[in-house]
This record gives sequence, structure tokens and C-alpha cells, in this order.
Amino acid sequence: MIREPAEPIRLGMVGGGKDAFIGGVHRIAARLDGTYRLVAGALSSTPDKARASGEALGLPRVYDDWASMLAGERALPEDERIEAVSVVTPNHVHHPVAKAFADAGIHVICDKPLAVNAGQADELVRTTDASGVVFGVTYNYTGYPMVRQARAMVRDGRLGELRKVIIEYNQGWLADALENEGVKQAEWRTDPARSGAAGAIGDIGSHAENLVSTVTGLELEAICADLTTFVPGRRLDDDGNLLLRFRGGARGVLIASQVQVGDENDLRLRVYGSDGALTWHQEQPNRLWFVPNGAPPQLLTRNGPGLHGDALAAARIPPGHPEGYLEAFANVYAEIASAIRGGTGDFPTVRDGARGVRFIETTVASAASDAKWTPFPTETAS
Amino acid sequence: MIREPAEPIRLGMVGGGKDAFIGGVHRIAARLDGTYRLVAGALSSTPDKARASGEALGLPRVYDDWASMLAGERALPEDERIEAVSVVTPNHVHHPVAKAFADAGIHVICDKPLAVNAGQADELVRTTDASGVVFGVTYNYTGYPMVRQARAMVRDGRLGELRKVIIEYNQGWLADALENEGVKQAEWRTDPARSGAAGAIGDIGSHAENLVSTVTGLELEAICADLTTFVPGRRLDDDGNLLLRFRGGARGVLIASQVQVGDENDLRLRVYGSDGALTWHQEQPNRLWFVPNGAPPQLLTRNGPGLHGDALAAARIPPGHPEGYLEAFANVYAEIASAIRGGTGDFPTVRDGARGVRFIETTVASAASDAKWTPFPTETAS
Amino acid sequence: MIREPAEPIRLGMVGGGKDAFIGGVHRIAARLDGTYRLVAGALSSTPDKARASGEALGLPRVYDDWASMLAGERALPEDERIEAVSVVTPNHVHHPVAKAFADAGIHVICDKPLAVNAGQADELVRTTDASGVVFGVTYNYTGYPMVRQARAMVRDGRLGELRKVIIEYNQGWLADALENEGVKQAEWRTDPARSGAAGAIGDIGSHAENLVSTVTGLELEAICADLTTFVPGRRLDDDGNLLLRFRGGARGVLIASQVQVGDENDLRLRVYGSDGALTWHQEQPNRLWFVPNGAPPQLLTRNGPGLHGDALAAARIPPGHPEGYLEAFANVYAEIASAIRGGTGDFPTVRDGARGVRFIETTVASAASDAKWTPFPTETAS
Amino acid sequence: MIREPAEPIRLGMVGGGKDAFIGGVHRIAARLDGTYRLVAGALSSTPDKARASGEALGLPRVYDDWASMLAGERALPEDERIEAVSVVTPNHVHHPVAKAFADAGIHVICDKPLAVNAGQADELVRTTDASGVVFGVTYNYTGYPMVRQARAMVRDGRLGELRKVIIEYNQGWLADALENEGVKQAEWRTDPARSGAAGAIGDIGSHAENLVSTVTGLELEAICADLTTFVPGRRLDDDGNLLLRFRGGARGVLIASQVQVGDENDLRLRVYGSDGALTWHQEQPNRLWFVPNGAPPQLLTRNGPGLHGDALAAARIPPGHPEGYLEAFANVYAEIASAIRGGTGDFPTVRDGARGVRFIETTVASAASDAKWTPFPTETAS
Repeated sequence: MIREPAEPIRLGMVGGGKDAFIGGVHRIAARLDGTYRLVAGALSSTPDKARASGEALGLPRVYDDWASMLAGERALPEDERIEAVSVVTPNHVHHPVAKAFADAGIHVICDKPLAVNAGQADELVRTTDASGVVFGVTYNYTGYPMVRQARAMVRDGRLGELRKVIIEYNQGWLADALENEGVKQAEWRTDPARSGAAGAIGDIGSHAENLVSTVTGLELEAICADLTTFVPGRRLDDDGNLLLRFRGGARGVLIASQVQVGDENDLRLRVYGSDGALTWHQEQPNRLWFVPNGAPPQLLTRNGPGLHGDALAAARIPPGHPEGYLEAFANVYAEIASAIRGGTGDFPTVRDGARGVRFIETTVASAASDAKWTPFPTETAS
Repeated sequence: MIREPAEPIRLGMVGGGKDAFIGGVHRIAARLDGTYRLVAGALSSTPDKARASGEALGLPRVYDDWASMLAGERALPEDERIEAVSVVTPNHVHHPVAKAFADAGIHVICDKPLAVNAGQADELVRTTDASGVVFGVTYNYTGYPMVRQARAMVRDGRLGELRKVIIEYNQGWLADALENEGVKQAEWRTDPARSGAAGAIGDIGSHAENLVSTVTGLELEAICADLTTFVPGRRLDDDGNLLLRFRGGARGVLIASQVQVGDENDLRLRVYGSDGALTWHQEQPNRLWFVPNGAPPQLLTRNGPGLHGDALAAARIPPGHPEGYLEAFANVYAEIASAIRGGTGDFPTVRDGARGVRFIETTVASAASDAKWTPFPTETAS
Repeated sequence: MIREPAEPIRLGMVGGGKDAFIGGVHRIAARLDGTYRLVAGALSSTPDKARASGEALGLPRVYDDWASMLAGERALPEDERIEAVSVVTPNHVHHPVAKAFADAGIHVICDKPLAVNAGQADELVRTTDASGVVFGVTYNYTGYPMVRQARAMVRDGRLGELRKVIIEYNQGWLADALENEGVKQAEWRTDPARSGAAGAIGDIGSHAENLVSTVTGLELEAICADLTTFVPGRRLDDDGNLLLRFRGGARGVLIASQVQVGDENDLRLRVYGSDGALTWHQEQPNRLWFVPNGAPPQLLTRNGPGLHGDALAAARIPPGHPEGYLEAFANVYAEIASAIRGGTGDFPTVRDGARGVRFIETTVASAASDAKWTPFPTETAS
Repeated sequence: MIREPAEPIRLGMVGGGKDAFIGGVHRIAARLDGTYRLVAGALSSTPDKARASGEALGLPRVYDDWASMLAGERALPEDERIEAVSVVTPNHVHHPVAKAFADAGIHVICDKPLAVNAGQADELVRTTDASGVVFGVTYNYTGYPMVRQARAMVRDGRLGELRKVIIEYNQGWLADALENEGVKQAEWRTDPARSGAAGAIGDIGSHAENLVSTVTGLELEAICADLTTFVPGRRLDDDGNLLLRFRGGARGVLIASQVQVGDENDLRLRVYGSDGALTWHQEQPNRLWFVPNGAPPQLLTRNGPGLHGDALAAARIPPGHPEGYLEAFANVYAEIASAIRGGTGDFPTVRDGARGVRFIETTVASAASDAKWTPFPTETAS
């Protein structure tokens, strides 16, 4: 379904200037369906760079820093000021920015991981509840139509009782010490000050956790983690392997690595139940394998026959014409827009983000422990 | 490479209103990289629908028909009027609209096939030459990064002397008479008045011809075509199989069908030379197989190792994160924008469009002939 | 189903000595299921080599030439002499050997193509009818379980009315002039005296024809062929592309090439009907794709759920444990054995072989003709 | 390379009568290359069934039980008696039979797991050393040509320093309680008395362990196992997930499940080093992916370009013609035959079998432990 609203949402952006990768992705996601118009930005923590980046994009309102932007926008008439802000800074800056804008009643779209510790995350949950803003976290893989198909099939009982989940996020681009060779994307990801306590497990393991939770609805009970740093001199883990136990008896394996040479963005999910199984692979995202117990495997395709309405709604073009990462990302933006406009919205919330932070913390704790199982904390009562 | 210019091109659109599919695709393609801003439209041949469609999109300037739009825009100051127009009407309307706007010095982006006969097509070539406008034809598959990689590898001699090409565009969605069941996309495609003399061979065979020409640079010498209408009552071919002979001795097979049950948009190209071979498949467009003669096959991936600059320039996001049809379409728009702004542009031109019309005409003639080979006309001297 | 009879059939072999490839394959096929015991051989046209080859295999009875073998075996008591003979000589020798043994009441297993012209082939049909022997032709691909599944599904109407067939046998190993570099397998295949009038089309195109006929039951009506010799100095075609018309209105494309660099034994069959489609690929022979019109594709697997009895009977081991070329070849041998023992047998007969020879002749004639369509001869009235 | 020796080895078999699956597989493996001739058998623990099974196969010498067979064969002249015995009984019978024949100087080919505990396994190691017989364990996956290619590439340093191994043996056929529905293959595998202390981990996890050891040469240091029984009432694990630590710092994940619906014999190995990576999949065994760090992936194919001599020697037929499970099994038999004939032999030995038993025991111990890591015992000093 191609969405093209007459009235785009006025969007601001914090972070995402020159040299940043993910800022450009967020802007495409916001723009692709015409659901947002980017009208203001404080695109860097360095004022000069913030200004230069904003001007290069032709933004109507360019600010030196996020505090000035917040102040500047609040000074505008309500029908001019930004309605929502995208927070695409390094991880440690998510919390102060998101909190400030949410407190001001501006809707927040925040990159993952939500925060660098659970205390920050819980505070964002409380702030969101108090302010009533829409708060989306860009776990972008949830936006793929076939992920929504998988979720619907699990929810509808097509797999029977869930037994096992295998989730992998295989990458190889950090097999060498690129952080010492001037590669910005490698630098901040391997720097505890900017990334938090975890490397691969925070950067991509968190996506893996979210995808499992989104598709299966299973709740983690305990984790057994082995984290390793393979590249000499690196300060954070670059490889993580986890055994998972879910409430109710399901079991799982989670693999998140950035040193598996040759793997690109090889995010794979397998879910097995008593009555069927599903397999999805991000690198071929328009396909979903479904195997009913005792029958031949079926290959479901985006916009193809037999799909659930959730999946059809998330697809723009005919089957066989591939949609990809940017379209999925745009789906997350579009669903947040729907919620901002007062409709329902199907997107990862601040609570998903807070659970993700807990996943990272529990994994790091398990890796440091001699006990086999580290319990996964039940949700905060915040 | 993510492109985000400060100054988008002012774009108008003719056709592409409610119920049209391809109009929405063109708008996403124009918007995705921020290279265009859609400011005017005459989105239907029915004035009411044209107005309603334009308002639904929040277009600044909504016109009843393309002639009014042309007049209205010419009356505006030069820095306000549209710089380019997208022509996304049914095939038989391409020629008058494109000619009128080009004559007025407005750049043209026209859907394929360029026109319904070679006479129209040649006139558009002459008009383009005379007016000096940029004229792009949206053979969108040429926009895929790995298609550009394939083209570069052929051009650089990596395959040696070309021997054989197998091109297929396999679809199955017209295996039943959907044109009798109210499916708009099926109706106009099977109606000679709107589609021209060819069905499948015009709709998708023309993409196949263009892809071969783009990647290999080979020139057709003669065609031997077998066109069939399988679905009872259908008025145009729904299946075409061709033997191809190229100047210089290469041979080829072209398959274009819309009744191959289960095939979605299964466009596949194989090119074989004396020193190597390439395989590309639109449904997995981020991959290109290269087999050097006598060595193991290599799997080249978008933005992965070993790619040509042409391919790298057309990719936005890291390897393994799939880009798809819309991104490829946007690449064609972005390259046309580059030419409009005075730079070089890498896109299919009006001459490619005219050759495509000749391909359709020659194929239809061959299908009606008892002679094995029907010569492919050399390019017009227009 | 693993077959292991207590009483193997006594087998002789003509051809297949040192340096021959296919002889060893036939011996494995005969031995794999324990259905035959090789007890006599005249393994070469050169007596010294025939003796040395037979002794190297430890054959009980080694002969200098096939005539001596025929005489020698006839002199033995009936319960000692060979019951069947495998003819694995170069193509031009098939006819005299097969005829002589059949005339003597010895069952014949003959490699394909059956003969080098239709006259020879027809004579073998008449000889077989007159003598009452079992005469099998080793179109080995028919032995794959999933080919039998495909045949059963077509026969059972699962595809509805057949519309289109695409059959390819893609190879690349003759992309260079290996016949000039001492490669025996290349030498005889490119030598008209030993191979007959056709190169690639005879060697592998004939397998393609047989596979189509076996699976679909369609009868050829006319052929339009383009044969090419790409490698300089080669004396037979190394690339063939055909348009096919079948009685009743189905259409087809046949590709058989030995110069498509990088292709190994890439035999692929696609069959499209009004109600469904099938795809099979020899390089992954344990899989068969079935797409019911309007429903998701299903992946049928050897010995997996939903298979026809014909396919189950031809499989030895559980699904997921791959069976391959040798097992399929052994299935042809086992079915011939079943017929020799007086049961039914599911294997390509001398009539299939004769039709195959006609296919080669018609293709060569078409390639030399300016007419688009060369009629396929109706079966001989022999 | 097709092997066809003039003098096959005289083979006996214990177990493998009617209703047994693996006996037939061993017989094909022994027969396929002509390297063995089965001349004697005690094919069941039930004398009547043993006789009937032997007669159905036409065995020259049929015995009521293995002790009679051992006695009977010893009474024969040395050039008539069996030279080797295949032990294909349920697991708990391996030890007494193998020991008795080895003690008698008869070479042993034993199914895996070698024994039901480490004490038995060690005794077989000592017996083998003392008697000097050849003792092969049919870890059949080691016989695949592309597994040998992988091993050679690791050994030659093509992957650099090994970092990580992911090994999976995914099956789904025991997702339901088939052991209660009269399926013999399910009955003994889920019966501790016949299978030993482990279910899936013993049946297929042991293959996984052996494949890792064979290809990488890595030595296990510690195991962290989570074993689960998903099917109600089942007495042994049907799902196992392990974290692995190898001496020298490499890490691993091992998955072995028989309840993953839809998975057939999906044995997959991925090996990652500092300089490259390998991926192999049993269901497509003729392929091996190799990714050099920083270069495009290469697809190596059996008998294709660029292969090591070890891999070429294990292939019989041209690339693209698939070889499968039975051919790999036959390779193990052929290599054992080579050793029996006094040559070198490339096959899993009794020591590999003993290590495999230790793997099962350590895994079961880890699953019962609260400690994260259970050390893997260093090899016995026997």
C-alpha cells in the first residue's frame, strides 16, 4: 500500500550530520512515503558541523545544538513548530535529548539501543507515560512485511505451541581492527564511552532480541552468554553466543557476531512450534518459509497469495519486485506517523526499547558469571 | 551513496492518479533521495479525478488536464514553474504529452514503452534533439547497482568476446483472464487501443530488450519470434519466445511471459563470453554472479568487495541490507536530475526508448512471418 | 526403497574400458542395488585394451571384441551366459552391437543417443519387437525420484492444461577447444564420425527432449532451431537454441549449450499449465517446486511429505540425505532388471530412443532451413 | 575417481536385517565401488530373522548369531574367511561384537556412536592397538568430497587463525511421538537401553562433533549444554544447544535437534577464521562456500576448478552431476578398504569414535550441571 498523505508531519532531527550513516537512512525513511517533512535540525554536537550539515540539506531551520533547537521550536507558533523529533545521536546522548523533547510534548523517534543503562531507559518510559507523547524506537527490522506476516502466523496459532527459536545476526565487517584505521562507524561502536557496556551484543544482538520478541511474543526467563573479543586491542565484545530460556518452556539460541568473515547483514530467524515452523532472512526479506508439520514447505512472498492483512498493508509494490531495508525503515516511520495523527500505530515503543537495554545488561552480566543461567529481570513496575 | 541535494528539482506529473499503480512508484522514486519536489499535476484524463488526486496528495498546483498544466506553468516565473515533467499515462498518450512539454523546454521523464509506434518515437527523438531538453525513459531495471556492475564488467572485457545472452522476464499474474474481472492493471495491458500492438512483449519484453542492450552493448541483427495468446478471449499476446541474433555473431534467447503460473517479476539475465559469464536476477538484485572461465564462481554483492565505481555510486546502504525496486527506480530519477542540473547522467534516453519501440514492432512482424529471421532495422537517421 | 535381490542378473558389457568415462558409471549403476553382476566384457574396440580393462576389473570372462563375446556367451549353458548386455560404445557402434545381441535374445541396455540416424533407430525398434527382448535406453535423468514425481503430477492433472515448457541443458566445459588438448571426452563428442550429425544438441539436447517427453507426455509438432559453433575450428554445433511447438497448442523453448562458461550440468525443466507449474533442476535433484495457481509455492522433497508412489519407490534413503546422479542411473538399471525378471519396468525404451534420434535429425534440418518451422515427423509405422 | 578393484574384500555383517535401515546403507556403501563383497552375515539378534534376512540377500554364508559367525569364519581357510566385519547393530551391542572380531584379527567397520560409555570405547581403542586391525567408524559425512576440501583448506591456512565454528544438525522428524506409533527408527533412538544416555545429542550431535573435529582439527576445552525433551513422555533429549570453547581460544555453537519441524537432514558447518570463512551444507553437499577476508565469496564445487587433491580423489563424476550421501558413505568404506589392503586410508578411526563417546558423556554431564562450563576430558592415556 503506497501512502502519500496530503499533510506531512513536521520533523526535526538531532544528530545525523556529515559522516554519520544512520541519519541519512532516517531521512529517507521519513521522506519515502511523504509522511514527514524535515524542517529543523541540530545535526551534530559540533555547532559548525551542525550548521554546515543543515545547510547542505537545505533545512528551513538550522540550529547549533539540540538545546537551541528545543528552545527555538518552542518559540514558534504551534502550527509551525516541529511535531516530532528523530534522535540519531550516539547511544549515550539518546537519553537527555529524548527526555527533553518528550517533556516538551514533542513526539520522539529514537534510534536503538534506547539508552546506555536500564535506569535511563526506565526514566524514558516514565517520561513518555507522563507526557503522553508517541515514542517510537527504530528497531527497523520489525517494519518488514514478512516479519509482520510471521508475527501474525505465530499469533494465530499456525505454529502450535512454540518450542524453539534460533536467531542469528551474523556480520563480518569488524573482523579486522577498522577502529584503528579511521573508520568512523567502527570507532564509536567499539568505544565503551559512546556505545555502552556492549559491542556486538549491543549493536546487533539488541536487534536480534527485539525481532524474537516481536515475532514470537515469548518472554525471556534466563540467559547463558559467552561473549568474546577476538580482535586484539578491541575494548568491547565482537562476538556473542547465547543460550536462551523463555517463560513457558521454549528454548533458544542467539548468535550475534561482527567477526564472521564474509557475513554481511545476515539476520536470520527460525521459529519452531509443535505444528509448524517459520524461517526468515533479512538478506532476502521478501520471502518467508512456512513449514506445516507433516506437509511440504511453503514459500510465502511479500504481496503474494495467502498473506495476512498486516503484511499486505506494509507492502507497496507487487510480488517479485523487491522491497528492502529502506522500505522497512519507512514502515516504522509511517506507523509512528499514524499514531501521531491519532490512529493506531504498529511500531516498537519505548517499552520495547527499555526491554532491549535490559537484554544487553543481562547478557553482559551472564558473560561475567560462572553460573549457567542469569535470570532475565521481569519488567520494571515504573 | 546517499544523495540529498539542498535544492530539489520542481517536478510536474501527467497521469498517475487514483487507481494508477505506477504513478505512486514514480513519486516515491522522485522523493526518495530528495532530488525532486512534486509541485504540479494533471493526474488523470478525467478532470474531476485529476483534481481529486492532486488534492489528496497536497500538490501546490493542481490542473484539470495536461494542456492546462503546460499553459499554467509557462505562465509562471521561470524560478517557480516546473523544470521537469513525469509522463506516466497509458502508452498511447506518451507521445503527445512528451512532445508538448519538450517543445516548451521542459525536461521529460517518460514511462516505457516510449510510444506506440516507431513514427511517434522518432518524432520524440527529433524533438528532444531540437529542444535540447533532457529526456529520460524509465527503464527502471537499469538503475540497479548490480546491473551497472554487470555493464562495467562487460565493457571492461572481463567476459572476453560475448557469445550468448539469455534474458527472461517471467510473470504469471495474467494466467487467468483478470481483464474480465475488473483488474485495472490487466485491462489496459490487454487492450490494443491503450497498449499498442503487443501484450507481454511490449509490457515486459521491452524491459528485457533494454536490459540486454544496457548491459552488453550488443546490437540486434535479426529476431525470430513466436508469440502466443494462451488465455481465451485475450486480444494481445501473453507469451513470447524469441531467438536473437546480434551483430558480430552473438546469439540469444528472450522469454517474456505473463502466464507462467507462479512467476512473479522474475527478470533474469545471463551473459556468456569467451572468458567469463554473468548472471543477474531481479528478485535478488543485490547479487551478481561472475564466473571467470576455469575458476570458481564469485558472488558479487552490492557495496561489497571488488565492485566498480559505477555500482558503488548507485548504492545507498551497506552490503547485506537489501535495496530493491524503488531504490533502482530512484537511481534513474537521480541520474536524470544530475543531467538536468548540468552534470553527466547515466540513464536510458529517448533513443533507447525509440529502439525499444522498434524491438516491439520487429517482434510482432516476426511473429506474423513464415521466414525464420526478421531483420532488426538499423537506427533511424533522424 | 532399497532393493537387494538374492539373484542378480548376469550382465555383459561392450565398451567402457580404460579412459572411457561412462562405462564406470554404468557399472556402478548396475552394482549399486545389487541387481546385476557383471560377468563378461569386451570393453574396447582394441583387443589388447579390451583384455587389460576386463582383467583390471576382475571380470570372470574377458573377450577381445563384441563378436567374440556374443559367440562365447551363446556357447555357454543358458544359466551361465549373460542375460543382458550394456552397450556403452561411441554412438556409431550402438546399432550393430545392440542389434546383434537383441537378435540373439539377449536383453539390451544401450546408451543414448540410440543410433546415428533414424534408419538405424527404426531397425532397432523392429528388432526389439521381433525378438521380444527388453531394450532400455539410459536416459538416466528419468531415474530421479523427483522427475517421477513431476511426471505423476502432470499425468494426474495437477497442472491443468499444459501451456509452456522451458527446458535447458546448460554446460560450459567446451567453451575452449579441449578437443585439441587431448581431452578424450571432448574429442569424440566433437567428431562427426563418432558422434553423428550433431554436437551439443545430440549429446545433451537429446536428454532435454527426453526429459520433456517423459514428464509432460507432450508430442512435438514443429521445431525452429538456431545452432551455432562458437569455438573456432570445431566441427559440430556447441550451442543450440530452439523454439518448440507441441501438438495441442503448448509452446516451448529448449536451450542446449556446452559453451556457457561456468555452467556445469545445469539441466532445468519448467512446466507451466493453466492450474499450476513445476520446476526441477538436476543440480539439486532432490527438490521439486510446485506452484498451484494462486497459492504459495511448495517445495517437494525426495521421500518427503505429499509424494506420489512412483517417486517414493525410486528413493532409497530419508529426505535431506541427498541422492544423486548415480542413484538415478541405478534406478534406470533397476527398472530394466524388473522388466527382465518379468515384472513391469519404468524406463526409457527403444522407442524413446528412436524418437530421440528423430529429434536430433529434425533439429539439424531446421537449423539449415530458412523456414521458421520444421515439422516433427510422426512416429514411424515400423 | 571411480575405483573398481579386481579383488574385493570379503566382508561379513552383524546386524542390518529386515526392518533395519542402516544395514542396507552399509551394504550399498560396500558395494558401490566394488571394493567389498558381502559373503557372510548374522543380520539380526533373532536367529530366525537373521537367517531369513541373509537368505533374502543371497549371502553365501548365513549365521544365526554373531558368535556363530565368528566361530564359523575362523574355521574357514584364511583365503575364504571374511577379512572385515561391519557392525551395524543397536549401539549397546557395538562393543562386544567389535571387540570379539578385532581380537580375532578381523578388521572392523563400526557404526557410530562407537559405544555407550567411555569405558567401552577405551577398551576398543586398546583392543585395536593390541590386535593391529584396521578399525573404522562410519562417521559418514567425513566422506563427502567437499568436506575433505574444507579440511584441506583449514589445514593449509586459508582461513588464518580459527575463531569460530557454528555447527548445526537440524532435524524435525521426531517432532511428534513416533516412538508410540510403531516407527522402529524412532523406538530404539528414544530408548535409553539401546541408545545410551543421550537422544538427539547422541544420534546426530555426535556427527556434528566429528565433523567439526575432522574439518578444523580444533580440540574441545569445555562445553555448556542445554538439553531438552520437548515431546511429552519421551525418555531422552530431543533437542540440544551447546556453547563450545576450544583450546587456543576459538569459540563455537552446536545445535542438534530432532524436533525442528520441517528440517530434514540439515547438517551445516560454518568455520570462521581471521583470513577467511567456509560454509558447507549436507543437503547441498557438492558445494562449499569460501569467503576470503575482503574479497567476494567463491562457490567451490565438487570436481570443479580450484580443488585440493583430497577432494578430487573422493569424487567420481563430473561437476554438476550430484553425488550424495551414499557416495560419501562409500568413500568411507573405500578408504577403510585401502587401509586393509595395506595402503593409507583416510577415515575416522576408533580414536575418533572414543572421542565422540566422550563428547556425548560430557554434554550430558553439562546439561545436568549448574556450572556454566564443563571441561572436556583430555584424551585417555590408554
